[in-house]
Amino acid sequence: MKKIIIINGPNLNLLGTREPSVYGTQSFEEVLTQWQKAYPNVSLSYFQSNCEGELISKLHEVGFHYDGVILNAGAYTHTSIALADAIKAIQTPVVEVHISNTFARESFRHHSYLSSVAKGVIVGFGMKSYELALLSLID
Amino acid sequence: MKKIIIINGPNLNLLGTREPSVYGTQSFEEVLTQWQKAYPNVSLSYFQSNCEGELISKLHEVGFHYDGVILNAGAYTHTSIALADAIKAIQTPVVEVHISNTFARESFRHHSYLSSVAKGVIVGFGMKSYELALLSLID
Amino acid sequence: MKKIIIINGPNLNLLGTREPSVYGTQSFEEVLTQWQKAYPNVSLSYFQSNCEGELISKLHEVGFHYDGVILNAGAYTHTSIALADAIKAIQTPVVEVHISNTFARESFRHHSYLSSVAKGVIVGFGMKSYELALLSLID
Amino acid sequence: MKKIIIINGPNLNLLGTREPSVYGTQSFEEVLTQWQKAYPNVSLSYFQSNCEGELISKLHEVGFHYDGVILNAGAYTHTSIALADAIKAIQTPVVEVHISNTFARESFRHHSYLSSVAKGVIVGFGMKSYELALLSLID
Amino acid sequence: MKKIIIINGPNLNLLGTREPSVYGTQSFEEVLTQWQKAYPNVSLSYFQSNCEGELISKLHEVGFHYDGVILNAGAYTHTSIALADAIKAIQTPVVEVHISNTFARESFRHHSYLSSVAKGVIVGFGMKSYELALLSLID
Amino acid sequence: MKKIIIINGPNLNLLGTREPSVYGTQSFEEVLTQWQKAYPNVSLSYFQSNCEGELISKLHEVGFHYDGVILNAGAYTHTSIALADAIKAIQTPVVEVHISNTFARESFRHHSYLSSVAKGVIVGFGMKSYELALLSLID
Amino acid sequence: MKKIIIINGPNLNLLGTREPSVYGTQSFEEVLTQWQKAYPNVSLSYFQSNCEGELISKLHEVGFHYDGVILNAGAYTHTSIALADAIKAIQTPVVEVHISNTFARESFRHHSYLSSVAKGVIVGFGMKSYELALLSLID
Amino acid sequence: MKKIIIINGPNLNLLGTREPSVYGTQSFEEVLTQWQKAYPNVSLSYFQSNCEGELISKLHEVGFHYDGVILNAGAYTHTSIALADAIKAIQTPVVEVHISNTFARESFRHHSYLSSVAKGVIVGFGMKSYELALLSLID
Amino acid sequence: MKKIIIINGPNLNLLGTREPSVYGTQSFEEVLTQWQKAYPNVSLSYFQSNCEGELISKLHEVGFHYDGVILNAGAYTHTSIALADAIKAIQTPVVEVHISNTFARESFRHHSYLSSVAKGVIVGFGMKSYELALLSLID
Amino acid sequence: MKKIIIINGPNLNLLGTREPSVYGTQSFEEVLTQWQKAYPNVSLSYFQSNCEGELISKLHEVGFHYDGVILNAGAYTHTSIALADAIKAIQTPVVEVHISNTFARESFRHHSYLSSVAKGVIVGFGMKSYELALLSLID
Amino acid sequence: MKKIIIINGPNLNLLGTREPSVYGTQSFEEVLTQWQKAYPNVSLSYFQSNCEGELISKLHEVGFHYDGVILNAGAYTHTSIALADAIKAIQTPVVEVHISNTFARESFRHHSYLSSVAKGVIVGFGMKSYELALLSLID
Amino acid sequence: MKKIIIINGPNLNLLGTREPSVYGTQSFEEVLTQWQKAYPNVSLSYFQSNCEGELISKLHEVGFHYDGVILNAGAYTHTSIALADAIKAIQTPVVEVHISNTFARESFRHHSYLSSVAKGVIVGFGMKSYELALLSLID
Repeated sequence: MKKIIIINGPNLNLLGTREPSVYGTQSFEEVLTQWQKAYPNVSLSYFQSNCEGELISKLHEVGFHYDGVILNAGAYTHTSIALADAIKAIQTPVVEVHISNTFARESFRHHSYLSSVAKGVIVGFGMKSYELALLSLID
Repeated sequence: MKKIIIINGPNLNLLGTREPSVYGTQSFEEVLTQWQKAYPNVSLSYFQSNCEGELISKLHEVGFHYDGVILNAGAYTHTSIALADAIKAIQTPVVEVHISNTFARESFRHHSYLSSVAKGVIVGFGMKSYELALLSLID
Repeated sequence: MKKIIIINGPNLNLLGTREPSVYGTQSFEEVLTQWQKAYPNVSLSYFQSNCEGELISKLHEVGFHYDGVILNAGAYTHTSIALADAIKAIQTPVVEVHISNTFARESFRHHSYLSSVAKGVIVGFGMKSYELALLSLID
Repeated sequence: MKKIIIINGPNLNLLGTREPSVYGTQSFEEVLTQWQKAYPNVSLSYFQSNCEGELISKLHEVGFHYDGVILNAGAYTHTSIALADAIKAIQTPVVEVHISNTFARESFRHHSYLSSVAKGVIVGFGMKSYELALLSLID
Repeated sequence: MKKIIIINGPNLNLLGTREPSVYGTQSFEEVLTQWQKAYPNVSLSYFQSNCEGELISKLHEVGFHYDGVILNAGAYTHTSIALADAIKAIQTPVVEVHISNTFARESFRHHSYLSSVAKGVIVGFGMKSYELALLSLID
Repeated sequence: MKKIIIINGPNLNLLGTREPSVYGTQSFEEVLTQWQKAYPNVSLSYFQSNCEGELISKLHEVGFHYDGVILNAGAYTHTSIALADAIKAIQTPVVEVHISNTFARESFRHHSYLSSVAKGVIVGFGMKSYELALLSLID
Repeated sequence: MKKIIIINGPNLNLLGTREPSVYGTQSFEEVLTQWQKAYPNVSLSYFQSNCEGELISKLHEVGFHYDGVILNAGAYTHTSIALADAIKAIQTPVVEVHISNTFARESFRHHSYLSSVAKGVIVGFGMKSYELALLSLID
Repeated sequence: MKKIIIINGPNLNLLGTREPSVYGTQSFEEVLTQWQKAYPNVSLSYFQSNCEGELISKLHEVGFHYDGVILNAGAYTHTSIALADAIKAIQTPVVEVHISNTFARESFRHHSYLSSVAKGVIVGFGMKSYELALLSLID
Repeated sequence: MKKIIIINGPNLNLLGTREPSVYGTQSFEEVLTQWQKAYPNVSLSYFQSNCEGELISKLHEVGFHYDGVILNAGAYTHTSIALADAIKAIQTPVVEVHISNTFARESFRHHSYLSSVAKGVIVGFGMKSYELALLSLID
Repeated sequence: MKKIIIINGPNLNLLGTREPSVYGTQSFEEVLTQWQKAYPNVSLSYFQSNCEGELISKLHEVGFHYDGVILNAGAYTHTSIALADAIKAIQTPVVEVHISNTFARESFRHHSYLSSVAKGVIVGFGMKSYELALLSLID
Repeated sequence: MKKIIIINGPNLNLLGTREPSVYGTQSFEEVLTQWQKAYPNVSLSYFQSNCEGELISKLHEVGFHYDGVILNAGAYTHTSIALADAIKAIQTPVVEVHISNTFARESFRHHSYLSSVAKGVIVGFGMKSYELALLSLID
Repeated sequence: MKKIIIINGPNLNLLGTREPSVYGTQSFEEVLTQWQKAYPNVSLSYFQSNCEGELISKLHEVGFHYDGVILNAGAYTHTSIALADAIKAIQTPVVEVHISNTFARESFRHHSYLSSVAKGVIVGFGMKSYELALLSLID
């Protein structure tokens, strides 16, 4: 049974509340439960933090024995070289996801420090971005 | 039954031959046949051209009655505003895919004119990028 | 009797269909017929292609014996040095036109490779941009 | 009867004297008289100032009851956000014109603060640029 | 009794008329009268000009014996080094104010030549920006 | 009674100790007590953290039922898109303040990610910047 | 006997006609015949197209069994990543040539996407540029 | 007898008062009188304005019959294309002078729109800059 | 006896594990023990955190009574103005060190916000970088 | 008697030979003799080298007991920080001169590393530039 | 008999020793002897210096009576405007050559100050680059 | 016994004389003698030149049999690709040192062409920078 973790970065604890026109009205926990049911052969865990350092520490913690990380680093995507270094430092493959189409938003959201060290990048499919990432890691 | 087309841009006719360390050794037609078998409920067609203008014309042709386009525009991704305009001009949703992780290659491959007008973007999963795009359009 | 040709570039075959809020709902052929009636002393022909190379070839073909070219190169305006070279290589004067106000749109539409080698530039008057160009060439 | 005003900016009082190879040898007043005769159904007035502030004040003065402004702001085109704000602040449509092909000159003349807020832009037809602007406003 | 002057730059004579969704519908004179009543211990005068040179001359005139200047230089904020030099040349402290949030508008409004030489900067509080500036100078 | 919180970012715990020529010699707590006395009708609380993530979490905590936030994010102002996202995600208006005139310091302090999403910005009035922000929120 | 092909890009069909002061007055076919006589041990063929896509397809066609390609891609040199990808994708060495000294012309002609993937670059020797390229491939 | 005029731009009316450490404590009129005595064979006149438009008009007025203009355009040096156009439009040679070493000050003072169209440039010799310019024009 | 602390930033807890070809295979604790033996007259302590805020707080804590700080801020070196502010705010001298030659790696690692406020910078000597820093502080 | 030296940089040994339309046809030695006669109270010496290092050494040699240096560093003006450092390191004032108007030539000639550390700058007066520099140093 | 000189710049004295994977293992003198034998009708001389000034002086020395210069200026290619000025100042045509493909190396090697003033440029053919240059000059 | 050489670049012959506030008042020779005494097991030699070419030649001379080079290339650090090439071409490791903190000075001193090819970099410790470099090479 594969061990996969979804790691969400800053402000993503507000999903369902924050800017519903961009991010939808579902809370993340609701969707997570659906996925856990839909993919019973995957051990799917979840972590969220607003703190860059805690995200790095979590990557270190899981990064040597999990089978996959699905990472939506929120705004740290665009500013954190330290997170990119953490991805390079661990062994578990990391898939970068974004709910909204970051390329259709402000120009400072067009660059990601994480993409070049991620296994792959999935952008713009709403909550389905996570599920596609999950599918890419299950195979 | 959903009608979906995969459109490949310049040099992708050489898949399996060109830079195997980056793009793999399978020809595209082989993989296509596998997908057509795996997804019998989808009418999955295919088009490839090295010519920007023909890619635009194909988008116009399918763009008002197909259910989805999976577009790997190759190097035109980074230079063609005309292709982006074609995506905006049609009604069918277009998913942008790339086989290799373009963000880990030369800096002129980091910008895509297409991403901001695509429904979503999937990058770096090898041939599996197309399949994830297909899954995103089937739902 | 003056020989003048209107040459339209990529996606302009969709006029009347594509983004009506930007480009209007009239097809180009309808308007062309009106102009041909309104200016009976001009031999006014028309060419459209989505292919940069065909636009260049057409400029070569007409560029040594026509009296004027009205060129809306669409998105190639912003990316094609080859089209600009074609304008410089021929003898017929070329007037650059745009339907929408390109300067009020995305910043990548603010620069034209063609403007510096065109006889003049007319931007933002809707379909009337072509007619003003025609008037500038008739005199 | 339509009320239209031509507003000329800095150094355009020297037309006919200044750099004749670029701007021609006719004084502006001579040409104006010809237009007033050629378009008897238009009340065509004229204003010139070397002072950015006076150009702004004139736009305010005419901008709520004239039918059109033809504005050649000369070098202020490239430096004056205040003039652009004035165009946005008034209700009369403003057509931006230039005598020479500004895009074929120094690079600091390639950007216009006014174009994005003007109704349209006409560049490079010599004195005829004004007449084409007039025709665009009469319709 | 403190002598304070509000100096408004280009297009601010149209307040109440121009782009009401951005600048509100009150004329500046109405609000000024309210402040003069609310702050009877301040001699509060007012000057507006569309001309950069007149704004500079006014700063020279008041700049050696007034107790404070509240300056909304409008679009000259972003283009006038000469105004900044005037602020540096005088002795009276100058507070820079803006009605709208200039940082949420076009990127060319994000830079101010005046801010680095002003005593302080207040941006985005509507007409209240002036009153906060007044309070900062009264103390 | 309005609930307003002052949130201070990194290094602002050293106020009164750090670079006194730039930031003064008063500790923040001393000044806070004065304001609480001066504005008895406001419930004025205070939070400081050196951690970007804790500042974001505090904004989430207060951002749906407080009446105003006065935010001096220190150096995070110039680097944190995540903080800007937090401001956008909540409902309470946020006023951005700075003690020193950031525009008169190093160029990397001239840009703020927060300004465009803040209600307003007050810069350069020393400790009085906070008080002006308070006045803007009380009204 | 070595098989070598000269491939010319857009507008080079006009050699002898276009801008003679830059490109000379000889047609390409005349010079080609001279070379074919002068180098009887080389099978020297020729292809010209104004279409980027056709140039790519021709490179694919010859690129796995010819001994050398002499490529003057005209203006596509400066804009086409797709052509550079084609050069990388094939096995035949490609020598980039230019008739005029592109480095002495407009700055947008100073960068070539092709140079970094070409075997070598020869610029500025008029028609002789091709002959030097031929000599480099014969050895 | 040669007719030469010194034209001073914005804020230079404050010479002797403004930033004495940079500009000295002499008023311009005092020095002017000394020069008029020292060079009795020159008709040396003087003009100062804070208004860009008035400086342009003065250049037009003297520019076709004076023997030389000594221009210190102050901060307009760095922002006014219109002044540069005026210099190009007239026939009298213009020498650009600056009192302080503008190249040793803020970077926005390092570029001058005027230098490329001036006869020559003299920077950094204090009031003596004007006298050196005078000597260059007398010869 | 001098009190000196080594502070390590994000991902440096993985030393010995992470990218051994860049950072070596020794854990930091091993090397620390060696130094503590080799320099018995120095009280050498150690702190590591992945959290920018905790690094700042630690600098505050030691920065007014320690004799020296040896700081390897990892990737925060390139992104954290807040850390630089902390260095400026304290009194203890800080030596910036890096294990690898950051100037030979990605361009985003070439700029350090810390260098300009550090006492000195030592880059590229592997673990010996720390020891050289120690020697510089002991003297 | 003042000791002043003229130091000329690379290619200026060819004056009178090189590009006469830009630099004139007089050799430098001819003009030097004229100045030595015209200014008998000045000990005027001369040095020329094509080598950056020799120019630096000459500045060191004269820079602590001469009364003035007139330096035309030719192309090193635009590339040599080492020369600028030499000017800062010595005590003799250095006047930077250029024969042609460097601001009217290629953009890479618009920036001078020397100007900010020179006493003053004189540009564009032909050979007379040196004489004006001499006059500035005699006073 | 034509007089041609090969001039090599800095570090090229180490050819055969330095970075053999980039520059090969032959010393330059060996190859030179071969060329002198192969082209007996050319007087082929050779000069190498690590000093920019000596390269300039050599160009002056040969530049008015030799028939051709083959110049590999090594790293000075990318930094020396003075060398470019020397090429412009002399009459002998100069062909710029590079052994390696400079366009495929670090980006600071992509720009050459020399190319725009050279007769032609030959890049990337190893030692054969010199021979092709020789052939271009013999004709 | 290790053979190590200190190589100093332009203007460093003036140490003790030049800008004492930045570089101290000791001459280099004084300090050198101290080091030679302090490290009797090292053969420590010294070379200084103001000429880029001589520095390169010296690196070639020592670079294949010395054990270490300590290089302070002065201002050539920021402009000389040729020096960097020399470091790459030799076999002896080179440590780059700077006396002052170059990162705290003008921005053109922040970039070094040498750092990426040096073994390590030591900046800002005054004369002690050389001694730390020596220690790094002795081990």
